[in-house]
Amino acid sequence: MFRTAELGRKVSKDEFERLATPLRTELLELQQLLLQADFPVIVLFSGVDGGGKGESINLINEWMDPRWIRTRAYGPSSDEERERPEFWRYWRDLPPKGQVGLFLSSWYSRPFMDRAHAKIDQVAFDTALERVAAFERTLADDGTLILKFWMHLGKDVQRKRLKTLEKDPLLSWRVTQTDWDHWRDYDSFISAAERLIQRTSVAHAQWQIIEGEDHRYRSVTVLKTLRDAIRNQLAERAALKAVANLSKETPKADKPAMTPPRSAKARASEQLASSLSTNGDVDAVLGEMHQGLPSILHTLEMDLDLSKKQYEKEMAFEQARLNELSRKAKANGMSTVLVFEGWDAAGKGGAIRRLTKSLDARDYQVIPIAAPTDEEKAQHYLWRFWRHMSRSGRFTIFDRSWYGRVLVERVEGYASRNEWRRAFAEIRDFEAQLVDHGIVLSKFWVHITKEEQLVRFKEREEIPYKRWKLTDDDWRNRDKWDDYEAAVNEMVERTSTSIAPWTLVEGNSKKFARVKILRTVCNDLERRLKKG
Amino acid sequence: MFRTAELGRKVSKDEFERLATPLRTELLELQQLLLQADFPVIVLFSGVDGGGKGESINLINEWMDPRWIRTRAYGPSSDEERERPEFWRYWRDLPPKGQVGLFLSSWYSRPFMDRAHAKIDQVAFDTALERVAAFERTLADDGTLILKFWMHLGKDVQRKRLKTLEKDPLLSWRVTQTDWDHWRDYDSFISAAERLIQRTSVAHAQWQIIEGEDHRYRSVTVLKTLRDAIRNQLAERAALKAVANLSKETPKADKPAMTPPRSAKARASEQLASSLSTNGDVDAVLGEMHQGLPSILHTLEMDLDLSKKQYEKEMAFEQARLNELSRKAKANGMSTVLVFEGWDAAGKGGAIRRLTKSLDARDYQVIPIAAPTDEEKAQHYLWRFWRHMSRSGRFTIFDRSWYGRVLVERVEGYASRNEWRRAFAEIRDFEAQLVDHGIVLSKFWVHITKEEQLVRFKEREEIPYKRWKLTDDDWRNRDKWDDYEAAVNEMVERTSTSIAPWTLVEGNSKKFARVKILRTVCNDLERRLKKG
Repeated sequence: MFRTAELGRKVSKDEFERLATPLRTELLELQQLLLQADFPVIVLFSGVDGGGKGESINLINEWMDPRWIRTRAYGPSSDEERERPEFWRYWRDLPPKGQVGLFLSSWYSRPFMDRAHAKIDQVAFDTALERVAAFERTLADDGTLILKFWMHLGKDVQRKRLKTLEKDPLLSWRVTQTDWDHWRDYDSFISAAERLIQRTSVAHAQWQIIEGEDHRYRSVTVLKTLRDAIRNQLAERAALKAVANLSKETPKADKPAMTPPRSAKARASEQLASSLSTNGDVDAVLGEMHQGLPSILHTLEMDLDLSKKQYEKEMAFEQARLNELSRKAKANGMSTVLVFEGWDAAGKGGAIRRLTKSLDARDYQVIPIAAPTDEEKAQHYLWRFWRHMSRSGRFTIFDRSWYGRVLVERVEGYASRNEWRRAFAEIRDFEAQLVDHGIVLSKFWVHITKEEQLVRFKEREEIPYKRWKLTDDDWRNRDKWDDYEAAVNEMVERTSTSIAPWTLVEGNSKKFARVKILRTVCNDLERRLKKG
Repeated sequence: MFRTAELGRKVSKDEFERLATPLRTELLELQQLLLQADFPVIVLFSGVDGGGKGESINLINEWMDPRWIRTRAYGPSSDEERERPEFWRYWRDLPPKGQVGLFLSSWYSRPFMDRAHAKIDQVAFDTALERVAAFERTLADDGTLILKFWMHLGKDVQRKRLKTLEKDPLLSWRVTQTDWDHWRDYDSFISAAERLIQRTSVAHAQWQIIEGEDHRYRSVTVLKTLRDAIRNQLAERAALKAVANLSKETPKADKPAMTPPRSAKARASEQLASSLSTNGDVDAVLGEMHQGLPSILHTLEMDLDLSKKQYEKEMAFEQARLNELSRKAKANGMSTVLVFEGWDAAGKGGAIRRLTKSLDARDYQVIPIAAPTDEEKAQHYLWRFWRHMSRSGRFTIFDRSWYGRVLVERVEGYASRNEWRRAFAEIRDFEAQLVDHGIVLSKFWVHITKEEQLVRFKEREEIPYKRWKLTDDDWRNRDKWDDYEAAVNEMVERTSTSIAPWTLVEGNSKKFARVKILRTVCNDLERRLKKG
């Protein structure tokens, strides 16, 4: 879940300077529009010590007009506060419509610290988070824009930061025993954080995990996210209002209008756009910057390979192992669900065939997911996956899956922004139900580089018996590589959970990929069988 | 909570027959429109044995076209089902878009029975209900219309029904020991039901509690609710679609349209209305019927009174008691929140003054709630109540309150339908936070009859020093008596919870009302002080 925030993403000083003025101007203009709007903005910062929470808050106050921003941080409750229900102090400090409230940890602080220090159990933690979620839902239902940033640092990065400080004679006083104690608790902090983020990330109050190592990267990301969110919400509310106003107008003529009526929403967006100065600059620089930034897929060592001999040996070993484990699983009534996603021509099909070779044909089903049937279209998008859940002891292998919602449907616009944003929580919930039922769930993203894909596409064009595999869609998808890559990155960030992590597979070598997949499936089965 | 479903509401045979044909025709027409629509309908029945769950399902199947209705009831899980996650069988049975699914208890059944039989504790119950709520939220987010009916019978009514059956030699075989066992568990069933309904009643999946005693009343109520909900949702979705289509149209001319564009929503509603046959009949008969039906307020014995002597004696006693209890509460740091709602001229102010007479002026605050200030308007509607929460040991007395959201704001249209429907859950959550914090919360609806109100209004007109109390608004509100009464009935039904019940006060006699209020406050304080 946090792997996407340990990529070493950086923004150069030059890039930052090119952005600063136009982005700042745009934020100030948005703030002026916001003052007239009928909703407040809440921006909440939480995360690892040293991740840049305070600095981000300072930067927003510096770049925007601080008269319409209120900043709140909370220590232990005062007498005044303890005598009232816990949320009283947060209600009291809510920003009014048109203004921005910056909050440091706030309503997450107590449950999070209690859980990280094991003062409360998981059930109590979940209950506290449910109250937080209800609070945010109440505000969002009323129109409040809620942004939540989780500022993250990897364990090593944090250690390095402490070490550097210790070595510096002028700064070493900053590092106390408490800092090192906290660092040693890193893992329990992170595991509480993971649950917190999963339980309280919903479409209307999504957590954004921000890589906190590079201060320019994190500043740009926070400010860009803030800008986009305010802009979006202004456009949506303006559209709603325009529609509502139209409803109030009494039609003056019986005849329909001669020209087709303009959409209220489109007009509102245009108005908004024209009232903002055209900072094409900002988006151009952001676009370039985005190109240069690594995604989670860049962390893979794509030259991993196996010799033919190694491959044959390891493959034979894992296939035998899988056969044995699958029989044990069957005897135990334990079901397995495997999910395969990946680029076109990444080798999903081949990997699946190597897997099913070890299984009894009566005990598995491969479900290829293409466009939904009429019957499926008439149902919720998850319905067509629920229907394939097998009886116990079986393998169900999805060649593409429910993740289509946040990949192809997102990128191609088949699902609306709200639909795919909502899907992350829906999918986490769906998978939790599978795992709670005792199902072994393994998810694979089979990755190849863009160059490797081109080689394989060409090969398919040339070899007659492979030609059917290559469609125009494949070429079209390839054109949108960057969009898909961003979608994959967000998918992994939001759905790689402790109970159902993604396995990213280095797929430039088919041999390496196939063995890694088989081994992972075996390991997952073995682990679950041991737990009994 | 269930008191509103124990009023002995009946529909006569004659009324029912006048309704049957037009209502049935309308439902069939709506079903035709629904077939073209992009959402399914889920109707779920649960409740007390003998409350008419099965009969309602039969009636819907009989009155509507059963080809587009699927009915599902669930017994213990089959082998097939147990081998899959619990919700698999419900997902499998979901109706496709355009169709209606009738469900008997279904996803509520297991957690409800487990809790009623004390097989699981409250935390496990809440967790199970949270999963149910997530399931319904997922479907509703996708557009599914969800209706949930809780068919209710009072304990006595159920006993009578069993007795009647036992006496009939031809039917006595129907009554088994199990029936009587269930009846004896009535109270634990009801308390589980109350929590279930509170936890899973949200705007998009509201429970409707239906009085199940009279089969004609319950049938008409279920069918009318179904009709209204489908009609509403069709109009809303049609409007959304119209707006979306407009956005797609490219404007063909640079000039704006000569006539003001008609609102897409208005057009969609008109189209819908014209495509339905005009069954003014149905609404007229329903209107008349509604007039004749008792609300919860009709259960009050409005001639309750006290002699002057009794009044003086009891008042002196309760005032002394309150004084003592309030000092104990203060010593214990225990806060009290009192809520007063009621008709204009019902005597709220007088009752509050009798109460505060017993309190130390430093320890209480009376908060009169009128129109919100500018500052309050710029915030969530609950904000202005949160801000008045006092330090511990104090009394905060609200003369009108957050219930304005579901009374005046609802009736006068200041809050949209979605806003006031959402408010029930928001208010329950708000009050739960107060009670969890240890606050004593008592809520009073001071009731007078319409005739008594007229007497008091006249009196105010005539007595110079009372004239300021009577405004034009009072007369306007009086004209909407029936709408307010319906709103009060729903308010009591949805917000009279075990932790924060409403006290309905018979207010035609001011003396009786004042003593009852004081005594209730004293009793509530005493109970909480004993719990410590």
